[in-house]
Amino acid sequence: MSLLWCELVHTRTGIERDVVLEVRDGRIADVRPDTPVPPPGAEVRRGLTLPGFANAHSHAFHRVLRGRTQAGSGTFWTWREMMYSAAARLDPDTYLALARAVYAEMALAGITSVGEFHYLHHAPDGKAYADPNAMGLALIEAARQAGIRITLLDTCYLTGGIGQPLTGTQLRFDDRDAETWAARVDALKDDEQVRIGAAVHSVRAVPAAQIPVVASWAAGRGAPLHAHVSEQPAENASSVEAYGATPVGVFADAGALDRRFIAVHATHLTDRDIAALGGSGAGVCLCPTTERDLADGIGPAGELARAGVPLSLGTDSQAVIDMFEEARAVELDERLRTGTRGHFTTAALLSHATVLGQAALGWHDAGRIEKGGLADLVTVGLDSVRLAGTVPRLAAESAVFAATGADVTHVMVAGRTIVEDGRHTLVDDVPRELAASIGALVE
Amino acid sequence: MSLLWCELVHTRTGIERDVVLEVRDGRIADVRPDTPVPPPGAEVRRGLTLPGFANAHSHAFHRVLRGRTQAGSGTFWTWREMMYSAAARLDPDTYLALARAVYAEMALAGITSVGEFHYLHHAPDGKAYADPNAMGLALIEAARQAGIRITLLDTCYLTGGIGQPLTGTQLRFDDRDAETWAARVDALKDDEQVRIGAAVHSVRAVPAAQIPVVASWAAGRGAPLHAHVSEQPAENASSVEAYGATPVGVFADAGALDRRFIAVHATHLTDRDIAALGGSGAGVCLCPTTERDLADGIGPAGELARAGVPLSLGTDSQAVIDMFEEARAVELDERLRTGTRGHFTTAALLSHATVLGQAALGWHDAGRIEKGGLADLVTVGLDSVRLAGTVPRLAAESAVFAATGADVTHVMVAGRTIVEDGRHTLVDDVPRELAASIGALVE
Repeated sequence: MSLLWCELVHTRTGIERDVVLEVRDGRIADVRPDTPVPPPGAEVRRGLTLPGFANAHSHAFHRVLRGRTQAGSGTFWTWREMMYSAAARLDPDTYLALARAVYAEMALAGITSVGEFHYLHHAPDGKAYADPNAMGLALIEAARQAGIRITLLDTCYLTGGIGQPLTGTQLRFDDRDAETWAARVDALKDDEQVRIGAAVHSVRAVPAAQIPVVASWAAGRGAPLHAHVSEQPAENASSVEAYGATPVGVFADAGALDRRFIAVHATHLTDRDIAALGGSGAGVCLCPTTERDLADGIGPAGELARAGVPLSLGTDSQAVIDMFEEARAVELDERLRTGTRGHFTTAALLSHATVLGQAALGWHDAGRIEKGGLADLVTVGLDSVRLAGTVPRLAAESAVFAATGADVTHVMVAGRTIVEDGRHTLVDDVPRELAASIGALVE
Repeated sequence: MSLLWCELVHTRTGIERDVVLEVRDGRIADVRPDTPVPPPGAEVRRGLTLPGFANAHSHAFHRVLRGRTQAGSGTFWTWREMMYSAAARLDPDTYLALARAVYAEMALAGITSVGEFHYLHHAPDGKAYADPNAMGLALIEAARQAGIRITLLDTCYLTGGIGQPLTGTQLRFDDRDAETWAARVDALKDDEQVRIGAAVHSVRAVPAAQIPVVASWAAGRGAPLHAHVSEQPAENASSVEAYGATPVGVFADAGALDRRFIAVHATHLTDRDIAALGGSGAGVCLCPTTERDLADGIGPAGELARAGVPLSLGTDSQAVIDMFEEARAVELDERLRTGTRGHFTTAALLSHATVLGQAALGWHDAGRIEKGGLADLVTVGLDSVRLAGTVPRLAAESAVFAATGADVTHVMVAGRTIVEDGRHTLVDDVPRELAASIGALVE
């Protein structure tokens, strides 16, 4: 059993002060606000303590592209070519080294659970590794070494566009068919900090007739099922041309829309798509910093929320890794799109980054600071120049609208402190590991 | 004479490596790239050294609102009410204390010149202080103490809407008429780190017939003339109703559009406005983080650039103080608006933050690292987790698209180091001064 004393805590009912948290067996055993004097032996956490962040959509290896894709112009599709060229060089060892550093960067930014949308399964010639899950296991090991939870969203990726064969680097993604994908993924097991989930890359990459196989695997495991949905107008056009239905329509027809389904991006939706998502219990994972970077556009966050769709957030392409930036972008982009303020409360924006994101990754006991919840916590210092002057009752507003990942001082996962005073306790020099692992893959 | 050795320097022609900068009398006396060994006595600057940033549009006292205006919903106009309530409590002493802390925060973020759009001239009852420039002089003193240059854009503010009297806090802004404004401002003098400029608050606040008086004062001094222009559609509607012209049209009719004129925001422009600005030499100052926050909308940055309008950047309401965020937002918001990438090169985005911003504030020798230029420099560390893995030839791309103000390690103004290893050398504890000066003004 360990004790934390937190100056300010964001709970379901608002900001509590002087809170003692009792942590036992990786869970919050008790929450005692209004305890002005820290009890003996308690670790003191100044600033604002929040539930740990869930990064519900990550491609770890895209971290190598940061900065590099900004020279000259280009489109989503030319960006994708550069991303493939980095992917071509990864093997289980280099993937482990890179992902360990990237997940440590996430930990430093307050992320306690990552949803890794993983499709780089096989060797460069398309052949399976000796263990056909070697690449996925490297990601799981990377998360373990970085101290965070992972939901490995093992991704079915069969075609290079509707009716098109896979080519080049895409051969690494290929499981031939959904049954073979399912047989491979069956060998992967959950543990205390690991969840295995399923993903359909997109309607571009999995024939509509194969989607029910993936969906039924996920249903059988009670696992999350994620898919890229309507990120680009071209994707919608090819879906309608091939199937007479939007991507959401294709997933609906496949019986995939339910409360374990997460549509990632959902930028270009019809009113009917929004209604279908809202009626099904499915969620949407927004990735605002990536959607800005790739010129995807601003998705209908307000309409989705009004339709009852739970929203979560992902850093996706790792243009930056900063859940504060993702959280505020949902509101700020909505302001730009509509010309009005006040669409989402700060509590709602935080719920996207915490409880709803954790649920999207299958962590149903995480994301709230309350008795019985997983002891996954992030503390934000309020004494940087960005946050100085914060008034306690509006500490969450200040953090969501003005903090960056650099303001995170402490992170706990399952009762273990993995970030202390802004330093990772398990990965000694995160910048050096990032530089080394990136330098090994790209010029 | 002092020597700096910089690992990487952003110059007009790109990234130079291993650069010796000779600094004499506040200027860059020599630039010698490709000098791998730092000469004896040289200060070593690892990372990327850029010209100092110009924050071309600031309202220092809005810093008290950070976080506080995010509770609940609201509009631009309710936000303005909260801003007025903070303004009502300022006097020359509290203004100096607050602005000193805010300008020190700016220095820590790499800002070497601030353009302060200043209209809080008089005592709460509207009477002049013993020195009628007491409030402006407090701002100049604050910049001096924080070590940065200031262009005091002394603002004429006469009406509370077209044809409406000033009321409440607005009485503090009132100079009765433009001639009285000019007589007051005449007493303010330039010095080595101070420029006096003029501003017309907006067409809402200065009758069209009075604008030529302000414009001609600015012309006589060779000083910049700034104005809020078309931030909100309601402003355009009232301008067209009263004058039969858009705000740009009103300024054009007043003879104010020339190369010393800066239209701030310019969010809602007609094609004719853009052509008028482009043909006149006038510039536009974008304030993207404020325009997001206030739901102003995304301005036509691409069209303005194509019309030949020089763009500059401002932190305006201090929602955040981060010129990297402002710089990248110009490109990223344009991507969201158009659905395509690659509108502005990194060099162009940096020019907005540096040379064009400095020129907008009347500092024509600042903003480039070249022989004869003012020795105003900012160095960005490349060893944080956000920037680790940066490749030297793309260091500017990485900084513009992924850095935050927290990555700034060193800042020099006129040859004097004011930030060293991320600490302000003149203001000992900036967060504490921010907290104290803000706490004295708002709950």
